[in-house]
Amino acid sequence: MTEKKRGKALNLGESRILIAGAASLVGSHTADLLLEAGAREVILLDNFAFGSMDAIAHLVGNPRIKVLRADLMRLPDLLAATENVDGVVHLAAYMTLGFAQTPWQAVDVNIRGAQNMLEACRVNKVGKVVFASSNAVYGYGSGIHGALVENGPFHSEGAPPAAILYGVSKIMGEQLCRQYHQKHGLDYVVLRYSTVYGERQHYRAANSLYIMETYDRVKKGERPLLPGDGKDTKHFVHVSDVARANVAALGSTATDIAVNVSGPEPITTGELVKLVLDYCKSDLQPEVKPDPPDTVRLTSGGAFHIPHELAGREIGWQPEVRMKEGVERLLAWREAQEAG
Amino acid sequence: MTEKKRGKALNLGESRILIAGAASLVGSHTADLLLEAGAREVILLDNFAFGSMDAIAHLVGNPRIKVLRADLMRLPDLLAATENVDGVVHLAAYMTLGFAQTPWQAVDVNIRGAQNMLEACRVNKVGKVVFASSNAVYGYGSGIHGALVENGPFHSEGAPPAAILYGVSKIMGEQLCRQYHQKHGLDYVVLRYSTVYGERQHYRAANSLYIMETYDRVKKGERPLLPGDGKDTKHFVHVSDVARANVAALGSTATDIAVNVSGPEPITTGELVKLVLDYCKSDLQPEVKPDPPDTVRLTSGGAFHIPHELAGREIGWQPEVRMKEGVERLLAWREAQEAG
Repeated sequence: MTEKKRGKALNLGESRILIAGAASLVGSHTADLLLEAGAREVILLDNFAFGSMDAIAHLVGNPRIKVLRADLMRLPDLLAATENVDGVVHLAAYMTLGFAQTPWQAVDVNIRGAQNMLEACRVNKVGKVVFASSNAVYGYGSGIHGALVENGPFHSEGAPPAAILYGVSKIMGEQLCRQYHQKHGLDYVVLRYSTVYGERQHYRAANSLYIMETYDRVKKGERPLLPGDGKDTKHFVHVSDVARANVAALGSTATDIAVNVSGPEPITTGELVKLVLDYCKSDLQPEVKPDPPDTVRLTSGGAFHIPHELAGREIGWQPEVRMKEGVERLLAWREAQEAG
Repeated sequence: MTEKKRGKALNLGESRILIAGAASLVGSHTADLLLEAGAREVILLDNFAFGSMDAIAHLVGNPRIKVLRADLMRLPDLLAATENVDGVVHLAAYMTLGFAQTPWQAVDVNIRGAQNMLEACRVNKVGKVVFASSNAVYGYGSGIHGALVENGPFHSEGAPPAAILYGVSKIMGEQLCRQYHQKHGLDYVVLRYSTVYGERQHYRAANSLYIMETYDRVKKGERPLLPGDGKDTKHFVHVSDVARANVAALGSTATDIAVNVSGPEPITTGELVKLVLDYCKSDLQPEVKPDPPDTVRLTSGGAFHIPHELAGREIGWQPEVRMKEGVERLLAWREAQEAG
């Protein structure tokens, strides 16, 4: 057995943790868990371009919470923000839609923004960085099938430019982490989230819209739409599991490694629609909707799944929330919101 | 047979062409060929951070040549430089060594610099952009073997961060071209150069140093060094062939496509050392030099080659200079330099 490289493990009960891109689904759940773990202070950094005060409203006023409006493109802001900080969870990023609509900002934030944050962490000797990456580093298209393991290549055949730009921007962020580790000894863990869903879901992530759109149609009495044959694979992960992975990575001795963070099992789009219909106690039949001829879809080459065993070994994490429970929790939250 | 997409072909005899990163090996040879083809004006843009006036000294004074000191990071400079320009050859980039030593500048130039240039081309309705990419978009390590075809994935297992950063920066440049084509109709051809070598060789590209270093040792009467077993594959392309590919791409109707630009055949490091020894009429025996244990080398998973048939079909180009001739030309130039 080869010796694993070991780095700094934070004692969360004594730590000040900064979350970048905190006013978000993953950010707010991570802050909740850090407070539970006894963190001395949790700094919620966001420029509120996409982040919303709604996502963190329940945290504001807590004496251990500090909300900080700052922008990743201003290194001096980050140098100030990371003073005496023990750990950083770097979530802030544009996704595929951002690379399609606002590619200048997306390049800024995902690459230079990550670089600025790593530089600030180096200067202020931050003990541990958790960098939020994505299964987008495996790419799209015909090459995507079977197990997407951590040392696999990036596929792009047939994918639209914005999706490829997003994927390689995440590869770049990961490699900037590696470079800071090699050059400066900065400890980091890359977590490659699969499609995140859950309570406080926003409407910005293309993939996770699926559950919400189906629910909205069923509530209006319309048949849910099933693009293709309903056999497309999705591999979601519930936001509470993602938050636990972030906290586990901060508290583990793992360093200089990238691990998948995925849910217990993949699901087909057909099964997913069925879960929503079951939740709604609806007997509507899904309507198969062929794609218009010029549609660009982020399809795979066949059934795939995203193993998370490496995360188990490296940071002692495994997912807990199965799709049925997760969809129920998300939709119950949605109903409570509507009931207002 | 499917219809190929067709775009703007420049009539070179009536064109003004801008070369970005022109004070370079590829830039100067491309300018030579454009003058031969009768171009009205050739604008040699460089910030001279790495570019050298030596490389373009033979062109200065030609009334059809304009030397322009400008920086890719200043969009206003590029907006001015591309006014009334018909075609752009975008060469300016940092390579792997740059991503290791100066990652901030490398990110700037390879990503934002490319984006700035594409934006300037959009605004000034430039007819055709040739974007210099690299076989680095196929990556490194165990995944690299056999034919590296244009729709292949990016491999990174075992590669150092700087090499991966360089490779994905080129993927990003390519995809920004695609995005400008899809959004704004900008015509472009991506040329993925393999390892360029030839007269006016600089000492900045890690791979092509091989020929020069072997030559230097032999000239000093020292046995040439052969890392590993001499069976590593290299696939070079002579700079005169690269220059012809640039000109062919400008003059072709090809658009929205990426093609390999590689030499007639790959070569092993052992065969390459032999070519240099033959040129020097030396009977020195290569010395096999095992790598030190912590060496990070950009190796492949086995013999590979980079097919260029797609370039033949798309831009009517194929390489002409075989390794023996190319090495002889390079070393004859080197000897003439030394003779001064």
